[in-house]
Amino acid sequence: MAQNIYDDGEFFEAYSELPRSVHGLDGAAEWPTLRGMLPDMSGLRVVDLGCGFGWFCRWALEAGAESVLGVDLSENMLARARRDTNDGRITYERQDLDALHLPTAAFDLAYSSLTVHYLTALDRTMATVHRALVEGGMFVFSAEHPIYTAPTSPGFVTDDAGRQTWPLDGYLREGPRTTDWLAPGVVKQHRTIATYLRNLREAGFDVTELIEWGPSDEQVTAVPEWACELERPPFLLVAARRH
Amino acid sequence: MAQNIYDDGEFFEAYSELPRSVHGLDGAAEWPTLRGMLPDMSGLRVVDLGCGFGWFCRWALEAGAESVLGVDLSENMLARARRDTNDGRITYERQDLDALHLPTAAFDLAYSSLTVHYLTALDRTMATVHRALVEGGMFVFSAEHPIYTAPTSPGFVTDDAGRQTWPLDGYLREGPRTTDWLAPGVVKQHRTIATYLRNLREAGFDVTELIEWGPSDEQVTAVPEWACELERPPFLLVAARRH
Repeated sequence: MAQNIYDDGEFFEAYSELPRSVHGLDGAAEWPTLRGMLPDMSGLRVVDLGCGFGWFCRWALEAGAESVLGVDLSENMLARARRDTNDGRITYERQDLDALHLPTAAFDLAYSSLTVHYLTALDRTMATVHRALVEGGMFVFSAEHPIYTAPTSPGFVTDDAGRQTWPLDGYLREGPRTTDWLAPGVVKQHRTIATYLRNLREAGFDVTELIEWGPSDEQVTAVPEWACELERPPFLLVAARRH
Repeated sequence: MAQNIYDDGEFFEAYSELPRSVHGLDGAAEWPTLRGMLPDMSGLRVVDLGCGFGWFCRWALEAGAESVLGVDLSENMLARARRDTNDGRITYERQDLDALHLPTAAFDLAYSSLTVHYLTALDRTMATVHRALVEGGMFVFSAEHPIYTAPTSPGFVTDDAGRQTWPLDGYLREGPRTTDWLAPGVVKQHRTIATYLRNLREAGFDVTELIEWGPSDEQVTAVPEWACELERPPFLLVAARRH
């Protein structure tokens, strides 16, 4: 079972103040790229795994989706999602994604933003997503990049030459990583890119696009402190098709 | 055009003393894994891109291949390959892989070991390999891992806690990297995993296996100094099928 850190008061309070919590999708630097990996949303039945405050669920409906199911483990997140949503075509459901149950062949698109790196049984979850999609359905997700999740001490250091470097270690040692992000003791699961790809292949997906995300030149000009993200990618974005 | 560093006397002399030059395939720690990604070699027409001393060409024939073409840019390497080869079913050819020419639909397997990170026009080379393979033919290659090629200063450093860390920077800044490996001024091309995958997809390949290689537990027990390779993968191994 994934850690339910979003129902930790200290974490939830800090998370609620992040730009992506205050401004929604437009507060997430990687959203324009991730949006570009989505299919035409018209008429799609969508499931959002780790829906949080429901920003994507509401966007999906506006973009033409027929229905959206948002799933999350956090009562805190779902309470605010329900409060901010006023459309019967969106349903929210509390589930542990490590023990996910979904109806068979009921969705055209599965989406997940920055959630899968919390899951301990990703192979099982991917198999469930595969069964829940129709043939040809898409699974589009983002995760913290393995280079980002690997280190024992995940923070930039300045080397003798004054360069910012990312002190990578343990890349090939997969498993839990405990960091103090927003609150102490947040547990994430480190997996390599190779493992993400193998899990997808074994679950029955063809990867159609994989992006190691960094900010665009325009984004760095607008927010110069994002330049360091070019030293090591913060996010992995994947689009895969069910066969 | 790729740098022809293997015809630099100092580099060639040092390269010739590496375990993989002295002991051939069995001197390369990643070979057992790479071999496991190859198809049954029986009757295959094989091309080896960056064949070096011809170790793989000779192995392929012993493993049942019908014919092998070894291509390399280095006169030094080819001279020794020809000297060590005594079978008319193996042909060696001098070519710059950045301007590669191969006959159409003439091969069942293209193989390349630790060569593509020298190429400046990988998209063009992959398109050429695609045309040279029959439908369903395989392209199996290894490259220095992007985490390995990215840094300005590619060497482990010991942090304040005594941990060996790899000072990653520039991962998302693709392009040439000049390092002093065996000789000063060796130029390699840094590309992300995403770019390798996109190039393959755009050339018409389906990736069937991707491995971020590190030593096995048995290898670390036998050669303890290889343990550091688990901190950051040295090699990327890929198998792809032409469609």
